[in-house]
Amino acid sequence: MSDPLTSLRSELARICDLSTAARVLEWDQLVMMPPGGAPTRAETLATLTELAHELFVRDEIGELLEEASSRRADLDPESDDACLIEVTRRDWEKASRVPAELTAEQTKLASEGMEAWAKAREDDDFASFRPWLDRTLELKQRYIACFPDAAEPYDVLLDDFERGMRTEEVRTIFARLRPELQELVAAAPDDEPEEFLAGPYPREAQHEVSVAVARAFGADASSFRLDPTVHPFCLSFATQDVRLTTRYAEDDLHGNSLFSTMHEVGHGVYEHGGDPALDRTPLATGCSSALHESQSRLWENVIGRSLPFWRWFYPRFRAAFPEALERVPLERFHRAINRAQPSLIRVDADETTYGLHIILRFELEQELLSGALATDDLPDAWNAKLEELLGIRPPSNRLGCLQDVHWSGGMFGYFPTYQLGNVLSVQIWERLEADLPDAYEHVERGSFEAIHEWLREHLYRHGRKFTPAETIERIVGGPIDPEPYLRYLRDKNASLTAA
Amino acid sequence: MSDPLTSLRSELARICDLSTAARVLEWDQLVMMPPGGAPTRAETLATLTELAHELFVRDEIGELLEEASSRRADLDPESDDACLIEVTRRDWEKASRVPAELTAEQTKLASEGMEAWAKAREDDDFASFRPWLDRTLELKQRYIACFPDAAEPYDVLLDDFERGMRTEEVRTIFARLRPELQELVAAAPDDEPEEFLAGPYPREAQHEVSVAVARAFGADASSFRLDPTVHPFCLSFATQDVRLTTRYAEDDLHGNSLFSTMHEVGHGVYEHGGDPALDRTPLATGCSSALHESQSRLWENVIGRSLPFWRWFYPRFRAAFPEALERVPLERFHRAINRAQPSLIRVDADETTYGLHIILRFELEQELLSGALATDDLPDAWNAKLEELLGIRPPSNRLGCLQDVHWSGGMFGYFPTYQLGNVLSVQIWERLEADLPDAYEHVERGSFEAIHEWLREHLYRHGRKFTPAETIERIVGGPIDPEPYLRYLRDKNASLTAA
Repeated sequence: MSDPLTSLRSELARICDLSTAARVLEWDQLVMMPPGGAPTRAETLATLTELAHELFVRDEIGELLEEASSRRADLDPESDDACLIEVTRRDWEKASRVPAELTAEQTKLASEGMEAWAKAREDDDFASFRPWLDRTLELKQRYIACFPDAAEPYDVLLDDFERGMRTEEVRTIFARLRPELQELVAAAPDDEPEEFLAGPYPREAQHEVSVAVARAFGADASSFRLDPTVHPFCLSFATQDVRLTTRYAEDDLHGNSLFSTMHEVGHGVYEHGGDPALDRTPLATGCSSALHESQSRLWENVIGRSLPFWRWFYPRFRAAFPEALERVPLERFHRAINRAQPSLIRVDADETTYGLHIILRFELEQELLSGALATDDLPDAWNAKLEELLGIRPPSNRLGCLQDVHWSGGMFGYFPTYQLGNVLSVQIWERLEADLPDAYEHVERGSFEAIHEWLREHLYRHGRKFTPAETIERIVGGPIDPEPYLRYLRDKNASLTAA
Repeated sequence: MSDPLTSLRSELARICDLSTAARVLEWDQLVMMPPGGAPTRAETLATLTELAHELFVRDEIGELLEEASSRRADLDPESDDACLIEVTRRDWEKASRVPAELTAEQTKLASEGMEAWAKAREDDDFASFRPWLDRTLELKQRYIACFPDAAEPYDVLLDDFERGMRTEEVRTIFARLRPELQELVAAAPDDEPEEFLAGPYPREAQHEVSVAVARAFGADASSFRLDPTVHPFCLSFATQDVRLTTRYAEDDLHGNSLFSTMHEVGHGVYEHGGDPALDRTPLATGCSSALHESQSRLWENVIGRSLPFWRWFYPRFRAAFPEALERVPLERFHRAINRAQPSLIRVDADETTYGLHIILRFELEQELLSGALATDDLPDAWNAKLEELLGIRPPSNRLGCLQDVHWSGGMFGYFPTYQLGNVLSVQIWERLEADLPDAYEHVERGSFEAIHEWLREHLYRHGRKFTPAETIERIVGGPIDPEPYLRYLRDKNASLTAA
């Protein structure tokens, strides 16, 4: 008789392989595939996803989990084996609750909905998208109904991205942030944008500086690729095979590939730093969406928009873009990439206004789910809330409620994790600085090994072994706390105003 | 109750999706993957391949095939449905005869064997590779034993690449070619190689001319990619998603990417021209290895090394490489890329000597399988036979019996299809010229649509619907015939000598 844990591991490895294959195909589709391949690719991906799901929710896996669990008492609760059993049992119970038809329907609707959204956004035609949004919400309600024990409906959706987190916790944190962020935005100077923001930033030079910083941050050529795409993302197929993507705006410093590259490198080094012993198990990826975002933001913002970073890198950056930056001193440049200023598009928002974009979405999606807000009224509600939060009003739905892909793909419950990631990025950095008081001096020397090593030791290597709450507790010694983040923003805004 | 054919199609579609995913992962591995991804990629690929095999050889598929076959009488025997049932039943019966353990062992040994071969070749150390060759031959014998009805052992292996073809047929064709090719080689003038063969051929310019010709041959940007790799190949994931690869030698005209690109485009347009109705079925690919090679060779050689082609393209090609070709007239160039001259490496051989390299391999692998030749004696046997056939002797095993990857990966029975492809390329071209007498005038105008359309109509669209023999019969009205090919080589050699 073979050991149930060994059998379980071997079954899970095959299922993980199918998911890995699906990720390779997704990367290929977004980065390499000729357009003619799209219809077939959708079929191939659907098969891989369905097959992985079917293989996972089999009774056989449930039985192996039960047998393995019964021997769990002999295991160190922090061992890979104990965590694997615990995490997989939870995943299996959750996946098994959802009828296969609903899963298939959701997958299909997401793919069709994203196409409908892309067209609606292009045409600035919310009415054509509304029926898709209605159907998506309908399926979300059926999904939520699979989990009748949830304290509130939104908890079910949030749990897909932040295992075990309650909506109430998010509400508390956002209630603390909302007025503080509004105050910071109100206090920010309202001067004209700098001319050098408009470039030119030639693409070749952007690529060179991006690769240089990616390498410095730990994205070595033997395990990473960096390719252009439309909407940058990061996917990993193994700890030693991580794909970063970026985009190149030649006439907008905020769209310089360096920032998107630093962001994706943050996601990438998290995946790359996983313990290879977790490979081909459900534990072999970042712990949660918020923790993942904490790392993209830590490398992009806490490090990558800091003055010490630019003290190190600005000479090289300026030399790469002489036409735009020759006469721009470091401090003016640093201020331009950090200043708080209300804008319409979330992905282009600065660090201070970004959180308010998220709070808007978090509030609206709860209202949509509860039925308090009809989809017909979404554009008005969006515009009114943006005006309330940031004092500006979108001139079109394209620049308003149609700007993000998430809802069209069924990703309700995802948005708050972006802002939780921002909060965590600073909270984790504070803890890192307690151990490494000269962290910013390392940054100023262009040396990132010690920072990287600390993050690997405290976060990256654990993958999904522990819950997000446990993982955060292990790093910072407590729950998510917005105070370090607010202090950081207050200090940054104050220093920029003084500069 | 659902129709058995509908159920069968839906099961086969999923299995095809797994194979398609595996091909995407193979392409990625050879063209894009950072080196660190290799160990995980091997696991992911093994899972996809095993799963596809497991799903295919299920009794359920056998039962669906039986039910569907019983209704086959109602179908037009040339219909997609009738051919699907026939071809799949044959594939299923063949796959079901081989124990899963043997398949897994062969896959594993192929992957390890190829690594051992690469190292042995690099070190010019045949002794280190010999044990792998012995194990490969041992597994081949076990594979052959799964098919006790075969007239001779080699038939089993050949059938994997040329369904239904007998070794005896190959022997007859090669017996006709052997003395004729030797005679042509002996008669070829033995002058020094032209200096301009050594370049320089800058990489950028090679890429530009390769893309230009690929587009002209029908490889449009919406369905094709062209990327660099070490050993060029072509893989398709759908009729509208074909990946070509090439390599760039800057100091050797024979290694100019244009020739490898034309070759791979030939494979690519065959896949691209398949009837989209066959997508996601086992019929959705070229009919056999020889027919596939007939198309790569038709576009690379019959068209791509012809004088009419170069009358059209030489001005552009010469302009791309002025340093090497400025003072080289068309006829001298055309002669240089066509002249017969004995050489050690198969893949670099000209059209006339190429067949003798294949005959050598075909004869030796039969001796290895029958036990008449011990692996210990392979290097000597190889060198003696090359001397007999081409009058030259390899100075090392690296340039001799270690040059090809095929045997290390278990691909015994594949080599003859290369030469059958050469033979067929001319036989098909002759038939095409009977319908399109001005085909070479089209070529000389750089117009390939009519040629492409003829090939699509007579060959490409059918995919694997018919057996190779049936497919060849449909195109040329008879069996494989070496005479057109011999006439073509004789004429070419005569015209080059006269020039």
